[in-house]
Amino acid sequence: MKAVPCGRLRPGQDLGAWASEALERSGLRPQDGDVLVVAHKVVSVAEGRLVRLEEVQPSAAAVRLAQETGKDPRLVELVLRESVEVVRARPGLLITRHRLGFVCANGGVDRSNAGLGCAVLLPADPDASARRLREALRARFGCQVGVVVADTHGRAHREGAVGVCVGLAGLQPLQDHRGRRDLYGYILTSSVEAVADELASAATLLMGQADENRPLVLVRGWRAWGEGSARALVRPPERDLFR
Amino acid sequence: MKAVPCGRLRPGQDLGAWASEALERSGLRPQDGDVLVVAHKVVSVAEGRLVRLEEVQPSAAAVRLAQETGKDPRLVELVLRESVEVVRARPGLLITRHRLGFVCANGGVDRSNAGLGCAVLLPADPDASARRLREALRARFGCQVGVVVADTHGRAHREGAVGVCVGLAGLQPLQDHRGRRDLYGYILTSSVEAVADELASAATLLMGQADENRPLVLVRGWRAWGEGSARALVRPPERDLFR
Repeated sequence: MKAVPCGRLRPGQDLGAWASEALERSGLRPQDGDVLVVAHKVVSVAEGRLVRLEEVQPSAAAVRLAQETGKDPRLVELVLRESVEVVRARPGLLITRHRLGFVCANGGVDRSNAGLGCAVLLPADPDASARRLREALRARFGCQVGVVVADTHGRAHREGAVGVCVGLAGLQPLQDHRGRRDLYGYILTSSVEAVADELASAATLLMGQADENRPLVLVRGWRAWGEGSARALVRPPERDLFR
Repeated sequence: MKAVPCGRLRPGQDLGAWASEALERSGLRPQDGDVLVVAHKVVSVAEGRLVRLEEVQPSAAAVRLAQETGKDPRLVELVLRESVEVVRARPGLLITRHRLGFVCANGGVDRSNAGLGCAVLLPADPDASARRLREALRARFGCQVGVVVADTHGRAHREGAVGVCVGLAGLQPLQDHRGRRDLYGYILTSSVEAVADELASAATLLMGQADENRPLVLVRGWRAWGEGSARALVRPPERDLFR
């Protein structure tokens, strides 16, 4: 697993070309079955999902929720536009269900590495973003790689945030071990592993959260195969373990 | 990151000696700052935390909960002994708060890779287990490595389980990026990263869940430093984001 040194991406720049050039410059030539993990932020910036807060007009609902949480009403307005449900709001905390199903802080809207006075939204369709990047890499390098679009999410019962997969192409997000036998012949009954989230977590260790700017990580040795969608990682509300 | 080929560990065997020999045989010599991730199961087996189900006498409470969940009453008895609170019980599902604070399925009690008719409990004190393993590696190889004891846990809002850290030594579980500046000078306000969980997730990708038997993974390039406890990863109930 290696972070790919890359320059800053300009809003609207072609992500596939930018990533391919970064890989070529670094001498990291992707191979069949590699996984490229990309921070959602560069995907969003390439796709123009940057919003200048001064251009946001907060609704009355956003103003109320901003008072409740102590957050910027313009930011809260963006959160509400990106979300289908407010899960929890209290001072300093706003957890929603994003329109893509993810339960996370601030509807995936983030002010870090967005530029001062700006916020970044999640890509409109992160699976489609991943597919386009996979295609660009296939065209450039002639190989089939998996792509994981990563964000960091907090957890209900554990401190700290970890990398998770919000979009993917060229791999299956869940690996089902059920029905297989263990070392002693016992048949596994409940082992479904969220490998796409584990790949995102692994890569996030190398990406850094502040000014390190390592939004691309190439993973080798874990063979990506199959197809899937990050939506399979979303536990539908009716299957929520804690309701 | 490399899985260390190793033979089967016998109950009661010395974990430090067993792991050191596996590392030596594989030619993977640990270096300062490496992290050795070890599946909790081999730690538990070494420490005799194996229980034969036929020797377990279920209490009346365990029998009731077994009926509610459709689980083996002897397994439920072990879960209750290991737990301080039942978080959710319904057919096929039993989520508790383990005595160490972790909220997870079946109180961390697991039948896979335990031997037929047996169950494995979490180590009595996984941080202490990690410290002993770290000491054994220091004595054998003369270097300071971090140790992460890994289990796999499900998540409230996401499908599939991922590797998490239940014990550690020689590293800090949380990396606090708050107060640092991003690429544009914006000061990060909420970025605490659960790096020990991300290390566990990364290693779990290589460990396998069934008969692969790869309970040791050596991670190089992410420099472990400092001290800490896996207890810092537990979000106390009063800070639970979803209550």
